[in-house]
Amino acid sequence: MNSPAPKSRDMLGRTDTVSLKEALRLLRQHLPACPAETITLEITEALGWICAENVLSPENLPPYPRSTMDGFAVSAADTFGASENLPAYLEVTGDVPMGQFPEHGPGPGACYHIATGGILPPGTDAVVMLEHTVAVDEQMIEVMQPVASGANVIGTGEDIIENEILLHRGHRIRPQDIGLLAGVGLEMIVVFRRVRVGIISTGDEIVPHDRVPPPGKIRDMNSVALAGMVRENNGRPTFYGIAADNEQSLTAMMLEAKSANDIVLLSGSSSVGARDIGEKVLEKLGQPGIIFHGVAIKPGKPVIMASADDTLLFGLPGHPVSAAVAFNLFVRPAIISLSGVTDDGLPQYPTIKAKLMRNINSASGRTDYVRVQIIINDNALPEAHPILGKSGALSTMVKAHGIIEIEEKIQGIKEGETVEVELFD
Amino acid sequence: MNSPAPKSRDMLGRTDTVSLKEALRLLRQHLPACPAETITLEITEALGWICAENVLSPENLPPYPRSTMDGFAVSAADTFGASENLPAYLEVTGDVPMGQFPEHGPGPGACYHIATGGILPPGTDAVVMLEHTVAVDEQMIEVMQPVASGANVIGTGEDIIENEILLHRGHRIRPQDIGLLAGVGLEMIVVFRRVRVGIISTGDEIVPHDRVPPPGKIRDMNSVALAGMVRENNGRPTFYGIAADNEQSLTAMMLEAKSANDIVLLSGSSSVGARDIGEKVLEKLGQPGIIFHGVAIKPGKPVIMASADDTLLFGLPGHPVSAAVAFNLFVRPAIISLSGVTDDGLPQYPTIKAKLMRNINSASGRTDYVRVQIIINDNALPEAHPILGKSGALSTMVKAHGIIEIEEKIQGIKEGETVEVELFD
Repeated sequence: MNSPAPKSRDMLGRTDTVSLKEALRLLRQHLPACPAETITLEITEALGWICAENVLSPENLPPYPRSTMDGFAVSAADTFGASENLPAYLEVTGDVPMGQFPEHGPGPGACYHIATGGILPPGTDAVVMLEHTVAVDEQMIEVMQPVASGANVIGTGEDIIENEILLHRGHRIRPQDIGLLAGVGLEMIVVFRRVRVGIISTGDEIVPHDRVPPPGKIRDMNSVALAGMVRENNGRPTFYGIAADNEQSLTAMMLEAKSANDIVLLSGSSSVGARDIGEKVLEKLGQPGIIFHGVAIKPGKPVIMASADDTLLFGLPGHPVSAAVAFNLFVRPAIISLSGVTDDGLPQYPTIKAKLMRNINSASGRTDYVRVQIIINDNALPEAHPILGKSGALSTMVKAHGIIEIEEKIQGIKEGETVEVELFD
Repeated sequence: MNSPAPKSRDMLGRTDTVSLKEALRLLRQHLPACPAETITLEITEALGWICAENVLSPENLPPYPRSTMDGFAVSAADTFGASENLPAYLEVTGDVPMGQFPEHGPGPGACYHIATGGILPPGTDAVVMLEHTVAVDEQMIEVMQPVASGANVIGTGEDIIENEILLHRGHRIRPQDIGLLAGVGLEMIVVFRRVRVGIISTGDEIVPHDRVPPPGKIRDMNSVALAGMVRENNGRPTFYGIAADNEQSLTAMMLEAKSANDIVLLSGSSSVGARDIGEKVLEKLGQPGIIFHGVAIKPGKPVIMASADDTLLFGLPGHPVSAAVAFNLFVRPAIISLSGVTDDGLPQYPTIKAKLMRNINSASGRTDYVRVQIIINDNALPEAHPILGKSGALSTMVKAHGIIEIEEKIQGIKEGETVEVELFD
């Protein structure tokens, strides 16, 4: 039997909580550099990956001046002063064939018929739109408006100039980026490898989720949810299994996970014994050991962050909602930072303003996270209904559309106030 | 040689544009039902997929009442009236072993030591937190506060009750959903298959992006960017190649794509000839044919929407920026609707309020889309810098962080005004 009611503060390790702000400062301070390893991908497979180097264009785009309109390739000078009352008359002496390089131009006072995408023939420098002309006969048009040199033309290199930086190191690759890479003939791109996240479950009361639990045990759901969160943030999760509640076996499993990952998550150590062991192992796995243990947030308070020889280690709370909140606050930014992506400061998640539908209390000095369900109202602010329910009940996260943060200084929010909800992905 | 300057309005097909609102109404009216085909996935592979049926829980979660705190399992009645001045004294007669079903309970006036996650022993109905007790000796504690029945306990089925709907048909699967499925022992889930989108490029001036273009030709970049946009919206793109500029070969390729896809995108038909052929083929491929051709938007105006026997067909503009705008306005909602996801009305993309850094003009009666670069300012509204550049220049989309919509009724926005920017993914 354990000794009852020990007053030991160490056992719970929850007394010396740090503020959220301080915890985030410590996280930033201990973030290792982005792993240097890169992989080379075909551009069509590169969506969402992070450029590991600046990408320079090997050529001009377009390689020749091209028409951006259907109309007539002209020398702009031939249209100067043209108007509806006094149109310029131009002879149509040819067609620009699509997809071919025009060897000859129309010459002064003449023009070629040209389609969008056609290459400007020699001696022409602008395109008169079809709509601004009138056909006199098969060989002659009236031009009703003057055009400036370069009008309705995309010039050589106007999209991209040779050796211009197309994409910067740290850029997350989007569909338009892939299109541009294709346009200049780049078939492969060097990207940072995925951030590797090892996941270990603890607790004598849990069994793998694909096994039928014997009486008294329950299925491991945290590791499965955490793997999904890692994937959602473009990390690569690896599950190492459920560690037995003893220091030796947990240490062995942690060392294995640490050697192959950038981040290791210790999940679900909710029993006192497992938590004690988890804390010991996190402290002793390498330098500097535990960085904080307990943060003034609710839920998520018992979160541990440690670092061992440049691998980040997190001990996440056993309650599934607490684990999710701690993941979003600490693990998500760590994965994003280690991914090598440049932080452009832009919001990453959709948010919505909504009207709070009941009072929420919050202790001062603690940052609270409240799950809410959103109901959309036509012609009115959407409603945010706080979801009551224990942080051990994952169903409350399933029923929720998003989460409200109540800052440390605020002692609660009244029904009817407008709140900002961060929506789940 | 083509006849010069034909006044034919049909050739351009751009005269009878419909408003954006009307185009979206027509789109909604012609959206086919979500394809009925489903696939069955392991839950750990189901992130982001759409539930094809309501998922019921096969069991209660938790299956037994469990402690949510470290402390002592008690009969709540034994603590009534307890206070710091007049504590309740309880004998500690045992431990709840983690992961085992407690056969016996402590009996009246006594309690068991219990850890978070432990199962409540018979005869107990609440847990007193460790922090609210003082150890008298090894066998006795003082309880300083009364607890109500159910306190610090998650009851049988309190997370999920047997036969409760866990996830609704049309729900997009998130990490917490996977966790909950794991918790109740569901290993597989039935989801709608991906929306299939065929892509065909047209234009005698383009070559496949992985080939070196001969003089006069350029690489196909639109189809590559469009494939990325399809993927980003969880569709499955298939590229059918570049159709020769004649009706027969385009018809054959379109029929092949139509038979295997929910949506077919005809990309880059920028030359008059290709456009004419594209329009003819879209009209004749099946009923009802072309639904609209030309929308009062800029860029993106020459977009065509057609429908043939429940396959949606889009003729997208040849300019890459125009193609992207038309995709986001029409193809993206079509993919989302066909995916089977329930529209909960919540915003899907992050947005940011920013200060417009130069005047933008816009014609009344037309909805304009302006690419902007965002510069984050500490302590001030972020700056939105409109990106000048032709809609043929894809690099302008690469430099942009997002896009501003200028509604039909608005004739421009002045420098210094606050705008809402929809950020790219």
